[in-house]
Amino acid sequence: MPPEPVMSREAVSAFLDEVFPQIHHGGPGPVVEAVGPLSATMRLPYHERHLRPGGTISGPAMMGLADVALYVAVLASLGPVPLAVTTNLSFNFMRKPARRDLIGEARLMKLGRQLAVGEVLIRSEGEDDLVCHATGTYAIPPR
Amino acid sequence: MPPEPVMSREAVSAFLDEVFPQIHHGGPGPVVEAVGPLSATMRLPYHERHLRPGGTISGPAMMGLADVALYVAVLASLGPVPLAVTTNLSFNFMRKPARRDLIGEARLMKLGRQLAVGEVLIRSEGEDDLVCHATGTYAIPPR
Amino acid sequence: MPPEPVMSREAVSAFLDEVFPQIHHGGPGPVVEAVGPLSATMRLPYHERHLRPGGTISGPAMMGLADVALYVAVLASLGPVPLAVTTNLSFNFMRKPARRDLIGEARLMKLGRQLAVGEVLIRSEGEDDLVCHATGTYAIPPR
Amino acid sequence: MPPEPVMSREAVSAFLDEVFPQIHHGGPGPVVEAVGPLSATMRLPYHERHLRPGGTISGPAMMGLADVALYVAVLASLGPVPLAVTTNLSFNFMRKPARRDLIGEARLMKLGRQLAVGEVLIRSEGEDDLVCHATGTYAIPPR
Repeated sequence: MPPEPVMSREAVSAFLDEVFPQIHHGGPGPVVEAVGPLSATMRLPYHERHLRPGGTISGPAMMGLADVALYVAVLASLGPVPLAVTTNLSFNFMRKPARRDLIGEARLMKLGRQLAVGEVLIRSEGEDDLVCHATGTYAIPPR
Repeated sequence: MPPEPVMSREAVSAFLDEVFPQIHHGGPGPVVEAVGPLSATMRLPYHERHLRPGGTISGPAMMGLADVALYVAVLASLGPVPLAVTTNLSFNFMRKPARRDLIGEARLMKLGRQLAVGEVLIRSEGEDDLVCHATGTYAIPPR
Repeated sequence: MPPEPVMSREAVSAFLDEVFPQIHHGGPGPVVEAVGPLSATMRLPYHERHLRPGGTISGPAMMGLADVALYVAVLASLGPVPLAVTTNLSFNFMRKPARRDLIGEARLMKLGRQLAVGEVLIRSEGEDDLVCHATGTYAIPPR
Repeated sequence: MPPEPVMSREAVSAFLDEVFPQIHHGGPGPVVEAVGPLSATMRLPYHERHLRPGGTISGPAMMGLADVALYVAVLASLGPVPLAVTTNLSFNFMRKPARRDLIGEARLMKLGRQLAVGEVLIRSEGEDDLVCHATGTYAIPPR
């Protein structure tokens, strides 16, 4: 059974705002909805700064959501590790997002001493179909 | 020998500004430096909106640069195809970018009837080492 | 709700043996365990031809398992499409497999007109932890 | 300028045959053609065991070639590190290989203390177009 998170949703949010203030640059950025055992759920508010013409949410906005969701899952599991760095991210874009908030659910598939590997499922709020699937690897600095 | 581009740098830039005005939302976005046979070079200006604490350029800014660079290479090769959509993007992040503009060089490895596949090499201006390597696939709508 | 498969496990197995006889070249290859709505389960028998020194199953054997598992999920959903081709595969290797059969569970996240996208979870039989996670894209020929 | 290799082609070949004897199981496997600064060239002989019906070389055979080519580039650069493990591999398949040997050219884009990242270009011998492009990451054990 995966271990319980060592940081609460509130603690992770406060840490994120401190170390990554610019995720909210130009408008609201991703928000931590929940953390759990090796997992995290983030919401990306539907906002002009994330849009493509036609009102659809842009690829880079989804990629940023996936990146931070994995980072939050690592943080919640290990405690504050500001120096963890993304080494690999891979995305499949499957459908056009609706004109709604996006929900990203991150789950770590491995949390090793040096590497964390996880996936993120991104959906438009209230829908079942995946908009985007991401996998990523974080390098964890020696502690 | 790969075919000559069918759109000039100026034509591609004007088309991008028209269909993706929001890449410059909140500050200067990626700029087309050059187009060539199955290739394109883009510059991401060093600007506060792309930064992480410590002054380094963020992962999502690099991912956006790679995405648009591949799209520009497709545009330059095929002419205006506003509906081409990214289906897959994969990134390896290798070094921390310097406090300088980033240069992304996109090259299409395949330009088929339905799919275009390419890679993007991202470096800090004036440096040899790669900061990030990306590969991506675009689905091309039937014409 | 995903559609029911249009081919049975037996029909898919017979089709595979006919079009890909060489997956059993040199010893037993992957076996179809089950097909379901947009999904398939394959077993790779533990056999000398798939091993690395130390008795662990090789990376290429796992990659072959993932590739065929996605193909079987496409077949079961669409019926015999011998010309579907893999365009992209991406793997994260997370743990050393045990000295046991491997089980690969494929699930299609998108089954479009031109592209099918899915993921494969690979585990050693009887274990919960993932050995490998794969995502892949198949191009489906016009019908 | 990248460092000169620390192992010769002959030394790497002998090491490979010793630690991975099974790459030649069932017929000739990949052969080291050359090693260079952060690079390696491998040849996969055209042989029945690597074929798909129609005489084309199979995806798993290409994936195995890419994996070993990156490993050889790591070996040639670092000396014998039998415990280096693949953590990530990503492939774009672009064309059907010809009925000929395949040539895989691996180049390391990063050789760090913990991670090596590289790409592999795979072509049918004597052709310019890429059959497959791969990127991969190796975790290097502490020395």
